[in-house]
Amino acid sequence: MKTRIGILGYGNLGRGVECAVRQNEDMELIAVFTRRNPADVSILTECAQVCSVDTVADWKDKLDVLILCGGSATDLPQQTPKYVKYFNVIDSFDTHARIPEHFANVDAAAKEHGHIGIISVGWDPGMFSLNRLYANAILPDGKDYTFWGKGVSQGHSDALRRIEGVKNAKQYTIPIDSALEAVRAGSNPELSTREKHTRECFVVLEDGADAAKIEQEIKTMPNYFADYDTTVHFISEEELLANHSGIPHGGFVLRSGVTGWNKENKHLIEYSLKLDSNPEFTSSVLIAYARAAHRLAEEGQSGCKTVFDIAPAYLSAKSGEELRASLL
Amino acid sequence: MKTRIGILGYGNLGRGVECAVRQNEDMELIAVFTRRNPADVSILTECAQVCSVDTVADWKDKLDVLILCGGSATDLPQQTPKYVKYFNVIDSFDTHARIPEHFANVDAAAKEHGHIGIISVGWDPGMFSLNRLYANAILPDGKDYTFWGKGVSQGHSDALRRIEGVKNAKQYTIPIDSALEAVRAGSNPELSTREKHTRECFVVLEDGADAAKIEQEIKTMPNYFADYDTTVHFISEEELLANHSGIPHGGFVLRSGVTGWNKENKHLIEYSLKLDSNPEFTSSVLIAYARAAHRLAEEGQSGCKTVFDIAPAYLSAKSGEELRASLL
Repeated sequence: MKTRIGILGYGNLGRGVECAVRQNEDMELIAVFTRRNPADVSILTECAQVCSVDTVADWKDKLDVLILCGGSATDLPQQTPKYVKYFNVIDSFDTHARIPEHFANVDAAAKEHGHIGIISVGWDPGMFSLNRLYANAILPDGKDYTFWGKGVSQGHSDALRRIEGVKNAKQYTIPIDSALEAVRAGSNPELSTREKHTRECFVVLEDGADAAKIEQEIKTMPNYFADYDTTVHFISEEELLANHSGIPHGGFVLRSGVTGWNKENKHLIEYSLKLDSNPEFTSSVLIAYARAAHRLAEEGQSGCKTVFDIAPAYLSAKSGEELRASLL
Repeated sequence: MKTRIGILGYGNLGRGVECAVRQNEDMELIAVFTRRNPADVSILTECAQVCSVDTVADWKDKLDVLILCGGSATDLPQQTPKYVKYFNVIDSFDTHARIPEHFANVDAAAKEHGHIGIISVGWDPGMFSLNRLYANAILPDGKDYTFWGKGVSQGHSDALRRIEGVKNAKQYTIPIDSALEAVRAGSNPELSTREKHTRECFVVLEDGADAAKIEQEIKTMPNYFADYDTTVHFISEEELLANHSGIPHGGFVLRSGVTGWNKENKHLIEYSLKLDSNPEFTSSVLIAYARAAHRLAEEGQSGCKTVFDIAPAYLSAKSGEELRASLL
C-alpha cells in the first residue's frame, strides 16, 4: 500500500516534494492543489492531477497525507488548522517564536477531526532542532551553537530587492570559520552576532542608480545588515543569473559540554548540512515525516506532533527488523 | 519524582554512569551492584549503597531503571534477558551482528514481565545509528560512510597486549583526512579498509624483547592490523602512562545523496563526535535513555526497544511545551 500524497502550493517547495515522492517507492503523488488556474500549472508527474485549491475537500478520502507548501508568514497559520480537518497534514512552519501558538491551533483541530498534523518539519526547524534536543539530553552541562550557511537567505535577498534603485539581488549568509573553530576547540566562546556570520550581497542596479548610496543603505539596514560585516558586489544581471541562480544552504549545530565527577572531560557533538538545494532537501524531510504521519494515523493516533514526538523508525520505509540488522 | 537508578558493574562505564546521574537533577543513584566483594568497592556517591550482584532481585521495587555496564562478549547476552525480568534495563550491547538475536531474547523476557529493555545504547551503536537512519530516510538515493577516531580502540589495545614480549600498549584508530574530504566533496568514493583509517600503536616492551620481530607481528596480524597502514612506536612505560592514559574517541557519520527530478542536486549530512572520555559519553547517552525507559514503563509499555523506537522528547527532562519553545 503506497502513501497517497497531495501537495498544496506548487512553488519551489511543492516542486521539491514532487521530486522527493518520485525517489520513494512507497509514495505516490495523487494531486497538486493550486491557487492559480489549474490549466496554467504544469507539473512533472504524468499520472497526478492539478486541481484548484477550492476543491481540496472533495479529496478527503483519496489522500493519506496532504503536504502544505505555503509560507509561514500568512499561509500556514491559516492553512494547517484548516486542512487538518480533512487530512493528515505536514507543514514546514518556521517562525520559531510563533510555534507554540501554531501547535495549539493545529492540535485542537487535529484532535477534533481525528487526524495527525506534523508541524515545523524541515532542517531548521527540523533536523537542527532534533540535534539540539539529542545533544542537550546527552550533555546537560554544555553550550549550544547554531551557524547557518554558506547559503542564500531568501528574506535578506528580498530586503535587498525592496531598496529603490535595486533591480535584482542575492544575499549569502556565511559562517565565520574562526568562530566555528573556537567552538570546536571547546573554549565555549561568547559570540556576538557580528562574530558568527558575515553577509555577502550581489546586487544588480537599475540604470542610473547611485551605487555608493545603495551600498550605504544596505550596510546600515537595521535587523538585516547593520549588525553584520557586510560585503556588497555590484554585478550585471547576466552574471547574477549565470552564477547566483541556485538556492544552496546549510549550516552547523554544535554542542560543547563536559562530563566527569569534576567536569574534567570535554565533548563536542557536531551536526552539519551542505545542501545544493534548500527547498529540495526540506521537501525530502517533509516526505519522510509524511510516511510517519500515515503510520501514526493508521495506528489511530491524532493531534499535533513535531519532530520531537516521532520515533525515528517511523520515518523509514524499512521494517524494525531490517533497521536493526542494517543500520543499528 | 526522581528516576531511581541502579548500576550493575562498576568499571569505566559504571563509573561514567555514576557521574552522569550526578549531572541530571531528575536522577538519583540508589545502588551499585558488583561481582566483587562489596566491601572492596568504593564509589563516589555518598548516599548510594554498594551491594553484591547476588542481591539484585531484592531491589525489585526500589529501582526504576537498572543500567547494565557489563561487556558485550559474554556479560550482556546473559544479563539483559535475566535482569529485565525484575527491572527496566538499559544496555550498551555493541556486537552489531548479534543485535537481532539479543533483541529477540530481551523482547520475550521484557514482555513476559511487563518491563522495558532498551539495548545497544551509546554512540555506535546509538547516536551513530540514529544519524544513519535519519539520513537514509531523508536521502534514499545516497551512500553512507562511517569513520571512527581519532580514538583508543580497546579491542586493538588488548590484541597488542596479548603479544609475547609486550608489557603494555595503546592503539589509536585514526580516520584518513583525504578520505573524509573526498566524501565531503560529494564524489561518493569507494574506499577500501586501508583507505579509510590508519592505526597507531604505542608499545612498551618487556625487558629483552625483540622490537623488530614484534613490530612485524603487529603489522601482519590478521583482522586487527594487516589490512591497515600501521605505525608502531616503542616507548617507556612512564611515557605511556603520562601521555596515553586517556580513553578519548569519536568519529564521523556521513551520508552523501542526491535529489531533484534528474538527481541534479547533491547534499551532504554529517554528524561527528569528539570525546575526551569514551565511557563517560556512552554513560551520558545511557542515562538519557534511562529517563525514556522510566517514562515508557510509566505509560504501561513493555518489550525490547532500541534508539530507533524512542521519540526524542522522551530523552529530555523538559516538557513538550518547554522543548517546543526553546529547542525547536
